[in-house]
Amino acid sequence: MTYCVALFLRDGLVFLSDTRTNAGVDHISTFPKSFIIEKPGERAMVLMTAGNLGTTQAVVNRVIEGHAGEGETPATLSTVPSMVGAAELVGSAVRHVLRSGAHGGHAQDSRFDATFILGGQIRERRMRLFEIYSAGNFIEASVDTPFLQIGEHKYGKPILDRALSHDTSVIDGVKIALVSMDSTLRSNISVGLPADLTTYVKDECRIALHRRINDDDPYFSALREHWSSALRAALAAAPAPKWED
Amino acid sequence: MTYCVALFLRDGLVFLSDTRTNAGVDHISTFPKSFIIEKPGERAMVLMTAGNLGTTQAVVNRVIEGHAGEGETPATLSTVPSMVGAAELVGSAVRHVLRSGAHGGHAQDSRFDATFILGGQIRERRMRLFEIYSAGNFIEASVDTPFLQIGEHKYGKPILDRALSHDTSVIDGVKIALVSMDSTLRSNISVGLPADLTTYVKDECRIALHRRINDDDPYFSALREHWSSALRAALAAAPAPKWED
Repeated sequence: MTYCVALFLRDGLVFLSDTRTNAGVDHISTFPKSFIIEKPGERAMVLMTAGNLGTTQAVVNRVIEGHAGEGETPATLSTVPSMVGAAELVGSAVRHVLRSGAHGGHAQDSRFDATFILGGQIRERRMRLFEIYSAGNFIEASVDTPFLQIGEHKYGKPILDRALSHDTSVIDGVKIALVSMDSTLRSNISVGLPADLTTYVKDECRIALHRRINDDDPYFSALREHWSSALRAALAAAPAPKWED
Repeated sequence: MTYCVALFLRDGLVFLSDTRTNAGVDHISTFPKSFIIEKPGERAMVLMTAGNLGTTQAVVNRVIEGHAGEGETPATLSTVPSMVGAAELVGSAVRHVLRSGAHGGHAQDSRFDATFILGGQIRERRMRLFEIYSAGNFIEASVDTPFLQIGEHKYGKPILDRALSHDTSVIDGVKIALVSMDSTLRSNISVGLPADLTTYVKDECRIALHRRINDDDPYFSALREHWSSALRAALAAAPAPKWED
C-alpha cells in the first residue's frame, strides 16, 4: 500500500509520500514514490506514484527518459513546455504502459492500475498540482480543494479537512502533512517509513527542501509527541456531556 | 453507508451510530441502526447494524421476536442466558436470513451482507462486546483492542488509535466517540446525523443514557467547535521544522 499527499497552498506546494511496497504481508520492500524533475530557475516538478509498482516504475522511466504518444515526437518532463503538458505526458505514458504487451497488456485489469500526483511550476507559468488516473485523464487541485491524496487516503483525511486551507503557510502545511502521514502509519501497517518530504516555494522554479524522514528523525518524533499530547489535552479540556433532560 | 463505533471500557460501554441509509446518492433515508434490549436490573444489550438494510432489519426482527436455528427452540435477545449466546443468536439469524428465499437466497452475494456490533451484560455475568459478521462468526473486543467499528470505519479510526484505551472513562469515551463520528461525517457525505448515542455502566444491567443527537444538539455543537479550535491551536503550537543540515 501507499500514502501520498500533496498540498496546493497560496505560497507553495508540499509533497509527502511513504516508501513501503508490499505484495501480501510477507513481501515488503522500500521503494521511493517521489521523483523530482528540476532545472533550477527554469522548472521544478515532483511526481508521486501509487499502485502497481511495475506500472509506476515503467511510467516514471518513460516520462523521465522520453515518451511519445502515437504520432508525436518524444518528450520528457524536462522538456514539456507546460504543467498541463506534463500531466498529459504522464497520462499518455500510463495508457501506453497499461496497453503494451511488456507490462501484461491487461489494460482492463485493475491489479495493474496506478495513480499519480504531479505538481510544480515552469518559469513564467502558473504553479499547478494534478492527480492523474490510470485512464490517463487528470484533475487539478484548486483554492476550494487544496489537497490531493493517492493510495490509502482515508485515515489521513480528517486532519486535512479540519486544518488545511489554501491560505495555510508552507511551514504549517508541512506540519499538517506529517500529522496526516502519522495517522495513516498508525492505522495501516502497509504504509511505512521512511517518508519523502518535498517542498516548493511559488515562483522559485527550484525545489526548496527534499528530505527523507526516518523513524528516528528528531523533528518528526517531536511533532508526533506534541500532537499526541495536544490531543490528550484537548480531550481533557473538552466540555463534558450535559444532557440532564 | 453507515458508521457505528462501540467502546469497551473498564467502567462501561459506549455505542454510537449514525442513521443515514442510501441507495445511490438520490435515495437517502433515515433509519435507526441502534437497538436496545433491556430488562432493567437483569440484562441490557445494544445491537448496532451496518450493511444491507433489508438484511439488517430482518435479523433485528428475528432476534427480538424469536429465532431458532435448525433443531433448536426459538430464542430472543431477551431470553438467551449469556452474551455469547446472544452473539450466536445474531450470527444464526444472519445466516438464516441470507440463505432464505424471502431475502433473495443470495447467500454468496456481498450486496446483501450485514455486520453487527452487540454489547451488554446479563446479571451475574461479564460485560462483553462483540462484532458479528455475515458468516455468523464473531470476534470480541478486549483490553488490548477496546473498540469495534462497522461501516465506514477509516476516517474515525485515528482519534481512537491515538486517544482511547480500556482505562478511558465513560465520559471521555463519549467525547472520543463523538469526535470520531464528527470526523466521519465531515469526510463521507453518506454518513449523516442524527446519531444515536447509548451508554452502559458496568454491572448496572440497565441502559445509562440513550440520546438522539441532531445537528442542533448544543453539546455536540460545542464539542465540535472546541475540537476544531483545539486542533488549530495544537497546530500553531507545534514545533516548526528545523532541518538545517
